[in-house]
Amino acid sequence: MKIIKSVADLRHERMKQTHKTIGFVPTMGYLHEGHISLLEKAKMECDWVVLSIFVNPLQFGPNEDFTLYPRDEARDLAIAKKIGIDLVFVPGVEEMYPEESLTRVNVRQVTERLCGAKRPGHFDGVATVVTKLFHMVQPDRAYFGMKDVQQVAVITQMVKDLHFPTTIVPCPTIREADGLAKSSRNVYLNQVERVQATILHQSLTEVEQRVQTGALQTASEMVTYVTEKIKSQPLAHIDYVEALTYPRFETFDQWEQEDILLAVAVFFGRTRLIDNHLIRFKGGETYV
Amino acid sequence: MKIIKSVADLRHERMKQTHKTIGFVPTMGYLHEGHISLLEKAKMECDWVVLSIFVNPLQFGPNEDFTLYPRDEARDLAIAKKIGIDLVFVPGVEEMYPEESLTRVNVRQVTERLCGAKRPGHFDGVATVVTKLFHMVQPDRAYFGMKDVQQVAVITQMVKDLHFPTTIVPCPTIREADGLAKSSRNVYLNQVERVQATILHQSLTEVEQRVQTGALQTASEMVTYVTEKIKSQPLAHIDYVEALTYPRFETFDQWEQEDILLAVAVFFGRTRLIDNHLIRFKGGETYV
Repeated sequence: MKIIKSVADLRHERMKQTHKTIGFVPTMGYLHEGHISLLEKAKMECDWVVLSIFVNPLQFGPNEDFTLYPRDEARDLAIAKKIGIDLVFVPGVEEMYPEESLTRVNVRQVTERLCGAKRPGHFDGVATVVTKLFHMVQPDRAYFGMKDVQQVAVITQMVKDLHFPTTIVPCPTIREADGLAKSSRNVYLNQVERVQATILHQSLTEVEQRVQTGALQTASEMVTYVTEKIKSQPLAHIDYVEALTYPRFETFDQWEQEDILLAVAVFFGRTRLIDNHLIRFKGGETYV
Repeated sequence: MKIIKSVADLRHERMKQTHKTIGFVPTMGYLHEGHISLLEKAKMECDWVVLSIFVNPLQFGPNEDFTLYPRDEARDLAIAKKIGIDLVFVPGVEEMYPEESLTRVNVRQVTERLCGAKRPGHFDGVATVVTKLFHMVQPDRAYFGMKDVQQVAVITQMVKDLHFPTTIVPCPTIREADGLAKSSRNVYLNQVERVQATILHQSLTEVEQRVQTGALQTASEMVTYVTEKIKSQPLAHIDYVEALTYPRFETFDQWEQEDILLAVAVFFGRTRLIDNHLIRFKGGETYV
C-alpha cells in the first residue's frame, strides 16, 4: 500500500493506472464501519482503490469543530492496509491549499436547506475540495455514504452539471446495533448522551411507520412528531428537523406519491449529530 | 477529421487516446487568424487536437449579443480540416446544458475589474463552461489567446486552484496589418468604424513608449492618455480604460518595477471591441 503526501507523487502513481478502473473514497479520516463499507465496495468494483484522508478546513465554519475533529492516522492506515487499499493520499493543508485559493464551486438549491442553511459556506467547501480531489485522483467511481445525504445530493448534482467523468456511488448508512448512525464524532458522546442519541434513528423510523398507516400525513405533522420525540431526551438540543421531497429537497405540505426525506441535526453538548431517513413512495431500498 | 455533436461520442473518441498528448482549443467559432494560430500551436505540440465550437449562452448578459454573435460552421470546419485538427466538437445548447444547471465555478479578485466589472456573471459563465469542456475533453494542454487577457488570468487561476490536470498555454494576440486585434466581432464594423478602431492598439503602444521614456509615470496619466486618444475618434464610445498590475490585476499609483497591463473596451455602435497591452518591467516577450 502506497502512502502519498504530495499531489505530484499522487499524479505520478495515477498516471501508471491508465487501463484500470479507479475507485475513490474521500474521507476526513478517523475511519469507522461506514467508511469501511465504502472502501470494501470500491475494492469489489474497481481495479485500483484510492482512499484520501484530509480534514478540510474550507468546509468548517469559524465556530465549528475543525481543531477538535478526531484524528488517528496510524489507525486509519492500518485499517486501509487490512482492506487492501492500493494508495492512501494524506495531504497536509499547505499541499491542498498552497496559496490563497480564489476559486469556489457553488451548487444552488439543494444546498439551501438542512446543513446548507445551518452551516453557511459548508457545501461550497465540500464541492470545492471534492473537485480538487477528483482532478488529482481522476476516479472512474467515487463512493459516499448516505448518512451525509445532502452531501451526496450536492456532489451528484455537481458531477452532472460539470460533466465530471466520474460515477457517484451512494452507499447505505451503517448503524450501531441500537440504530445510532456510525460517525467519527460519536467518540465525543459521553455515556448518557450516547444512550439518548438513539432517539434520532428511533424517531425517524417511527415516522415512517405512521406515514405508511396514514397516522401522519403532512410535513408539519412529521416534523412535530420527530421534534417532540427528540425533545423528550433532556441532553438533546435540536439544530433542525425537516421533511422535504427527495431528491429535489423541496418543501411540501401533504404527502402525495413521492419520495420524502426526513433529516435531523441535533447537538449533544458541543457534538453535533446528523441523521436522515428516506420514505420511498414505492418502497424498495431505502438508500439509493 | 471527426465531427462530434454529443458528449457521449466525444468521451468515446477521447477514451481511445490514452497514450497520446491531447491538445484543446475551446472557441465560439467564426474562426480567424487568432484561432488558427492557437490550433497550429496545438497541432505542433500535441498528438491529438480537439477544437470545440460553442457559443456559450451562460457568458452573455441579457442585453448582450448572444443571438447576433457571428456563426459559420461550414467555414470553420473547412479551416479545421485544412489545419489537420483531429476532432471538432460542436455541441448544441441542449447538449451542454441538458437541464437547469445549478452549479457555478467562481473565481474572485481577477474577475472584479475590466470585463468582469462591466459584464456581471460573464466570467462565472466562462469558468463554468471551460470546466465542463475540460471534463469532457480531458486535455493535457489548452490554448487561449492573450487578446482575452482577463480570460487567460481567470482560467489560469482556476486551473491552479482546482488542480486541473491541464496546462494552460497563453498565445500572442494576432493583429491586422494596421494593428487591430483579430476578433470575430470585427465583421460587424462598418468601413469608418474599422478605420477608427485602429486607435485602440495605437494608443496602447504609444503609452508604452511614453512610459519607457518617463513621460508617463502614474496609472492615472496612462489612463488619461489612452482615454483622450480614443475620444479623438468620434464613433468610439469607451466602456473602460484601465491600468493595473499584472498578473494580479490590482490598481497602482506610480509605476515601480513591475509588469503592468493596459486594457480597454470600446463600443463602435453595438460592436464592443477589447484590446490590451502588457508593459514588462524587464522587457521581453509581451504575451506571457
